[in-house]
Amino acid sequence: MKPVSVGIVGLGYWGPNWLRNFAIQEGCTLAWGCDMNVERVTKFARQYPATRFTKNVTDMLGDKSLDAVIIATPTSSHFSLAKAALEAGKHVLVEKPMTGTSKEAAQLVSLAKKQKKMLLVDHTFAYTASVQRIAEMSHEKKFGDLLYFDSTRINLGLIQKDTNVLWDLAIHDLTILAAIRDLSHVTEVLAIGSAHYGTHVEDAHLHLTFTGGFAAHIHASWLSPVKIRKTLIAGRKAMITYDDIEPSEKIRLYDKGIDHDDTKPDPFFPKYRSGDVLIPALPMTEALSTEAKHFLECIRGNEKPIVSGEDGMRMVRILELANESLKKHKPVKTGF
Amino acid sequence: MKPVSVGIVGLGYWGPNWLRNFAIQEGCTLAWGCDMNVERVTKFARQYPATRFTKNVTDMLGDKSLDAVIIATPTSSHFSLAKAALEAGKHVLVEKPMTGTSKEAAQLVSLAKKQKKMLLVDHTFAYTASVQRIAEMSHEKKFGDLLYFDSTRINLGLIQKDTNVLWDLAIHDLTILAAIRDLSHVTEVLAIGSAHYGTHVEDAHLHLTFTGGFAAHIHASWLSPVKIRKTLIAGRKAMITYDDIEPSEKIRLYDKGIDHDDTKPDPFFPKYRSGDVLIPALPMTEALSTEAKHFLECIRGNEKPIVSGEDGMRMVRILELANESLKKHKPVKTGF
Amino acid sequence: MKPVSVGIVGLGYWGPNWLRNFAIQEGCTLAWGCDMNVERVTKFARQYPATRFTKNVTDMLGDKSLDAVIIATPTSSHFSLAKAALEAGKHVLVEKPMTGTSKEAAQLVSLAKKQKKMLLVDHTFAYTASVQRIAEMSHEKKFGDLLYFDSTRINLGLIQKDTNVLWDLAIHDLTILAAIRDLSHVTEVLAIGSAHYGTHVEDAHLHLTFTGGFAAHIHASWLSPVKIRKTLIAGRKAMITYDDIEPSEKIRLYDKGIDHDDTKPDPFFPKYRSGDVLIPALPMTEALSTEAKHFLECIRGNEKPIVSGEDGMRMVRILELANESLKKHKPVKTGF
Amino acid sequence: MKPVSVGIVGLGYWGPNWLRNFAIQEGCTLAWGCDMNVERVTKFARQYPATRFTKNVTDMLGDKSLDAVIIATPTSSHFSLAKAALEAGKHVLVEKPMTGTSKEAAQLVSLAKKQKKMLLVDHTFAYTASVQRIAEMSHEKKFGDLLYFDSTRINLGLIQKDTNVLWDLAIHDLTILAAIRDLSHVTEVLAIGSAHYGTHVEDAHLHLTFTGGFAAHIHASWLSPVKIRKTLIAGRKAMITYDDIEPSEKIRLYDKGIDHDDTKPDPFFPKYRSGDVLIPALPMTEALSTEAKHFLECIRGNEKPIVSGEDGMRMVRILELANESLKKHKPVKTGF
Repeated sequence: MKPVSVGIVGLGYWGPNWLRNFAIQEGCTLAWGCDMNVERVTKFARQYPATRFTKNVTDMLGDKSLDAVIIATPTSSHFSLAKAALEAGKHVLVEKPMTGTSKEAAQLVSLAKKQKKMLLVDHTFAYTASVQRIAEMSHEKKFGDLLYFDSTRINLGLIQKDTNVLWDLAIHDLTILAAIRDLSHVTEVLAIGSAHYGTHVEDAHLHLTFTGGFAAHIHASWLSPVKIRKTLIAGRKAMITYDDIEPSEKIRLYDKGIDHDDTKPDPFFPKYRSGDVLIPALPMTEALSTEAKHFLECIRGNEKPIVSGEDGMRMVRILELANESLKKHKPVKTGF
Repeated sequence: MKPVSVGIVGLGYWGPNWLRNFAIQEGCTLAWGCDMNVERVTKFARQYPATRFTKNVTDMLGDKSLDAVIIATPTSSHFSLAKAALEAGKHVLVEKPMTGTSKEAAQLVSLAKKQKKMLLVDHTFAYTASVQRIAEMSHEKKFGDLLYFDSTRINLGLIQKDTNVLWDLAIHDLTILAAIRDLSHVTEVLAIGSAHYGTHVEDAHLHLTFTGGFAAHIHASWLSPVKIRKTLIAGRKAMITYDDIEPSEKIRLYDKGIDHDDTKPDPFFPKYRSGDVLIPALPMTEALSTEAKHFLECIRGNEKPIVSGEDGMRMVRILELANESLKKHKPVKTGF
Repeated sequence: MKPVSVGIVGLGYWGPNWLRNFAIQEGCTLAWGCDMNVERVTKFARQYPATRFTKNVTDMLGDKSLDAVIIATPTSSHFSLAKAALEAGKHVLVEKPMTGTSKEAAQLVSLAKKQKKMLLVDHTFAYTASVQRIAEMSHEKKFGDLLYFDSTRINLGLIQKDTNVLWDLAIHDLTILAAIRDLSHVTEVLAIGSAHYGTHVEDAHLHLTFTGGFAAHIHASWLSPVKIRKTLIAGRKAMITYDDIEPSEKIRLYDKGIDHDDTKPDPFFPKYRSGDVLIPALPMTEALSTEAKHFLECIRGNEKPIVSGEDGMRMVRILELANESLKKHKPVKTGF
Repeated sequence: MKPVSVGIVGLGYWGPNWLRNFAIQEGCTLAWGCDMNVERVTKFARQYPATRFTKNVTDMLGDKSLDAVIIATPTSSHFSLAKAALEAGKHVLVEKPMTGTSKEAAQLVSLAKKQKKMLLVDHTFAYTASVQRIAEMSHEKKFGDLLYFDSTRINLGLIQKDTNVLWDLAIHDLTILAAIRDLSHVTEVLAIGSAHYGTHVEDAHLHLTFTGGFAAHIHASWLSPVKIRKTLIAGRKAMITYDDIEPSEKIRLYDKGIDHDDTKPDPFFPKYRSGDVLIPALPMTEALSTEAKHFLECIRGNEKPIVSGEDGMRMVRILELANESLKKHKPVKTGF
């Protein structure tokens, strides 16, 4: 089988991790690296002698033998780079958020379809062992009917200058949420927040209403004295907590819930169930390695995208609606 | 000095605690106990031989020498009992929530004023060592300008049949909140929630907007696998967490925050400050004993009510507005 | 079936708990209470009107219809009271430590045998849901071969004037230890410790060597800034922690251990196994109630003592040897 | 000022960290790297083009302009390499344990003295911000008279084939201990332990008796289901815990202790003091960087070694005595 030829554009913060991971994937050639910064180009060229490095993305996209492109540049350039790559007939994996607007995201989705190329968005959490286990449990109906999702992602800083805390932090919680419930079932978005230091909202709550009574709530903040990354998922059969700060005991499955007491005449008489807690052992895998492998398998036609262009577009749309809700100061309908 | 003569009506769940605490207060006579249930009356009469017990509240209120009445009955009877007690010229301490409606609360406030009697509402948290220390720190400007208040009070059950989780649990967070910010400055109330088992909202978020950019957010739930009682208060100078589940280390004061970096040309360039954490030793006092003593001192004219009738009324009003917001599905103005 | 008639001597700290628990046991009459302190006698006589109370233990022991006696007096009087009770033909449950010396304990064991009466020692931990679950797991061979037991019981105070920290605190760890391994297999006792405030050792380590390579280590201290009550039990198949401070998650069963890697030529090549963690739900029972019921069942011949006179005697012997080791400053043989 | 010329021998596990740290120290030239493994030599030669790399340590030691040597090879070669380096007139920083025997260590100490060269031992913990803060507090008499030191360093694996758990893990606790008390005051060493999988003790307790009533206890284990790195230091004025697993709140200073109650006639009547807890902010420095800088300052004559050859020798001696105690099964005198 011919190896997949991969190129990475953007070698600043996240790109080097892609270099490292694609360099060791089987059935793959790390063909190109690209960054506008000459120093970076020089440095990585030394480190990866078998890979071509360039300042000029057209060099890379012009290579007929290149199959796929990873876009790890700042958000503002995602759209134009992904468009160019798809037009050049490359498969694309683009950093989150996929684009600055959902309109651009929609264009990319159409283009990928037309070009018959893979378009994936790098929502890294979807590839962690924790979130994959949660998705698996959800698929196996371990939770029963879902009641609510509640996630807290707060710490002190780093305040971003060009975006608010929802686009920066809550996007991770949305990724976790997507593991248990299709985001196309969100009917309404409500966001509340405030800015005290910069110009964008720094402490925010995002509330998503789904069809069928399920709701998700996310608290994201750059202004907390304590660092918390904790998600609660409550279902009728079981409940789960996911604490990403815990070094090894990240997921706890609670055999807890409320049952109807059938011995009582009252139609509703709650009987609280409080059984064992299970902390499953999780494999020690690097999410990015899992994701790199998955991208290659999608290109080979062996797997379906875990986070497709449509998924990435929906995330962007929800965040846009969150911004709209922040401005209008009331809930807004998604129209999904 | 003549001892204050005290009577307690309602000897079910909370009333016995009042009996025990007033029985040992100095400068006070535990004169009456009252409950419609004969068994309780008999039982407590044996335990407190120096106190008169009755099934009939008019017996108690008819006692000219009685100075003050504690009302520890279910909420539905608070208004009529408090009204009767004030009309009989007694000082009143009534359980939270003060009344079922803010209109009734307002009547009681007027009546107390007219009768020149003390009217206090038992929001017990206001008398805990933790909350009193928080109030003290706030008064000493330890936090600097307040940014936000965020409180989580969640656990599994007990689902109430006649009220929602905000009236049952979030009322405690409102009490803690009142220790640092006057609730008359709330401009808007937003509540979101859902009911999955009973008929009243079981999992809810309450968001209060204050004048001047401060906001408070409360998550209250009867549907959580884990029990959390945690409050975060962020100010520009310091931040605090209050974890009521911790047996002894309830309050943590963080010398953390964001400062402007004056060495940078940019008008805003954040400098994150992360200093020591202090866990203050707190006295091991029973809140109810502190409160009983305070009520007596208010009657003697030595102290001002920490939770007055106006305060209790405002709590009821905020919870009414929360119910309205839940129904209308959008924020509502307080008109305070 | 004739109810068992029970009397309790010693109504100071622990005795009232026995009154409360035996008063509600089925198939049992709380016949007598006894204490040298008149005030206590008067107070409990009022509270338990169906029970006879006396200052004079001979009154109680002289009652032919009395079946069993609970001895909850200070240790110094355990021997004479238990002896008198057994001689009077009563079954006996005596507080821990059983006696001040193992010689006395041995006399009681012989006497009970001769009198054909039950003799139990109140090592309360043996009746907690946690320790009973540990005993059950051990019995089911959940741990595999036992490797070691390590227990820490430290906090600030309360320094005892007439005994050292091993007799006061480590005795609880010995009780937990006895749930997984017969203490008659202890071959050697080593104790190390120091006294800084009073005259008896306040911070101590106790190390027990068992037949077959198993060892137990206990750290007991009245001089720790933090309160810890944590026991580790390591076996070849599984490991357990028991944290008695945890309100509900007291026991954690770890599917962890070291296996031999059979694929390696080396006779020993470790393969570390790190599987799920299970936190079993435990019933919310009061240990003393379980113990009271058990004592009654032993008297009725339906159960065998969980902590017999022999068991209590062995604990006293181990603590005596610990004192000897402290003095000699080296390990001492048990001669068991 | 002429830069100090530094060479590093041993580029396996720890050596590369030294390369990285000395490469960026001011006033220092990273002149040489040396390892018997050619691949390593080649790899690092590419990474550090300004540094000479060799397979042959005599090349390096023969360089007259080389001032100092870091020895990061396995313990068995420490003595011969350090000896050769000192004889060649180089300052030496050698990994812990300094040597395999205290006799060898003593020879090195003499030789360094004779050669008038610095001889330091890399006990890295001594250079962590936590331990330096503890040393500082101790120096400032924050703890008052020291009562005891208790340290636990347990986890699952990695079982070493050529040494026991005391030489592997407890050596870190000895380093922490040395920050508050001079190890030359140890009068007696007691070690107990057992081996279940390999041939060397895997679970051990080490007890050190000091002059003046102070004692230190260390529990080190490769056989624990949970990872614990916790040290308690109790003094008459204050107590401290140091938890190295905590990401940021490593040290807690407790204003706790026992005072004599002067109001009581009894010569000893304990009054338990339980004041605030302080968690000091610690700088985010890398211990190895601090240590590299310190070594250079020692060479320049500006600082005195924090862990001198004598200190390293004493550690080795204590561990030798621990092995002896394990074998003799009783405490052994140090003769310090």
